[in-house]
Amino acid sequence: MSLHNIRVVLVNTSHAGNIGGAARAMKNMGLSRLVLVQPEDFPSSDAIARASGATDILDNAQVVDTLEEALAGCSLVLGTSARDRRIPWPLLDPRECASVSLEQAGQGGEVALVFGREYAGLTNEELQRCQYHVHIPSDPEFGSLNLAAAVQVLTYEVRMTWLAAQGRPTKSEKLETTAMLDTQPVTVDELEHYFGHLEQTLIEIGFLDPQKPRHLMPRLRRLYGRSGITKLEMNILRGILTETQKAARGEPHKRRKE
Amino acid sequence: MSLHNIRVVLVNTSHAGNIGGAARAMKNMGLSRLVLVQPEDFPSSDAIARASGATDILDNAQVVDTLEEALAGCSLVLGTSARDRRIPWPLLDPRECASVSLEQAGQGGEVALVFGREYAGLTNEELQRCQYHVHIPSDPEFGSLNLAAAVQVLTYEVRMTWLAAQGRPTKSEKLETTAMLDTQPVTVDELEHYFGHLEQTLIEIGFLDPQKPRHLMPRLRRLYGRSGITKLEMNILRGILTETQKAARGEPHKRRKE
Repeated sequence: MSLHNIRVVLVNTSHAGNIGGAARAMKNMGLSRLVLVQPEDFPSSDAIARASGATDILDNAQVVDTLEEALAGCSLVLGTSARDRRIPWPLLDPRECASVSLEQAGQGGEVALVFGREYAGLTNEELQRCQYHVHIPSDPEFGSLNLAAAVQVLTYEVRMTWLAAQGRPTKSEKLETTAMLDTQPVTVDELEHYFGHLEQTLIEIGFLDPQKPRHLMPRLRRLYGRSGITKLEMNILRGILTETQKAARGEPHKRRKE
Repeated sequence: MSLHNIRVVLVNTSHAGNIGGAARAMKNMGLSRLVLVQPEDFPSSDAIARASGATDILDNAQVVDTLEEALAGCSLVLGTSARDRRIPWPLLDPRECASVSLEQAGQGGEVALVFGREYAGLTNEELQRCQYHVHIPSDPEFGSLNLAAAVQVLTYEVRMTWLAAQGRPTKSEKLETTAMLDTQPVTVDELEHYFGHLEQTLIEIGFLDPQKPRHLMPRLRRLYGRSGITKLEMNILRGILTETQKAARGEPHKRRKE
């Protein structure tokens, strides 16, 4: 069942009660995988009290040190964001978020819904690891939802979309007849390796000045992040970087060697 | 504004924290009228803590003795219900609930969304005072939402429907106020120029063999074609190709020249 491919990631949560509330909301909506990045207070009796029976989700919650670990294996990452950011990022409402998440999960991808700190949300750096930002359209005068309430809204929309899709053939069934490698999405770790390789290459060819990086990497992250790159396309992009580096270093290239 | 015609009625709430959470959810979604029928513990510091700034809603909450008083002046009453009842009743999901509520409010009617006790919900007698029952489609194995979470879901759907009816600015209109160049999509001619430049560069670095092109360019066309590249992103991609060519030709690059 594709709901199990969708994990909820809570970053640096201060109040254990919110972790419990999030677990209950998830279980109500049929989700099960909770990942906690450096929670301030966990395990905790407050979390158990607010979970109100969803203790299996708390017991199985994965506690990790970095957002990177929390996103391991994911091919789609969506981050909740309250504010407008300087670099416009693809912005979804909760319903659109549910739709892209289930589409990805239906293709066998792993999806992360990432929620930030109670008072400060996600940092810009964390948000740049997300292909999409999700905004719950609250009243601008009083915009900040309780963390567990935000988890409730997003998981509710996931369930509504999931229920509507029951009985329809999933895309993955359709796709299995075509080339798997060329349809399988890359994971975020593979995407991170690519960004590392890309940044290094841009420095070598002199396009990126590490002293004056401007917004080059965030913009390239945004572009490639939203493109839904397949494993085969990633092989091509990595190959281009490798050959570019050889050219920049004056090394003989693949074709010439043959 | 028709949102003010929609009141939230909480019947016999046990935990004051849930009243505060409900108030916060309402204010987040632009609702303001809260009516409490025989709350067990109100006013309360727990309510104020969980309201997290939505204290005006608590201060203005009306406390009454009977559901009848809470529904005074209403032309439409919807009651949340977890269970199937002996007498089948018109049953709406939260989205349908939002739709009939705003239709009624838009005609000047007063609407009540009624929520029952934390453990026992609404009695059959109370439910029979409602024209419609509303069911949040939770997992049947773990169906009972936290009270404030249920208020969050219903008021969220009210706000989504209300926004859609406002002639909400479309995404592209919203974006026009931010950096134009970074949101304006490239034209197909610009994309074609890019593909020409890309192909030439890939040949120069030795990644693409014109005698044995495989499916490299079609795959890259597919990737960049679906990415919805903006004009600013295109400038970056073209800049990368230009610097790559210089590197392949052994020419000094931009940064080194400075």
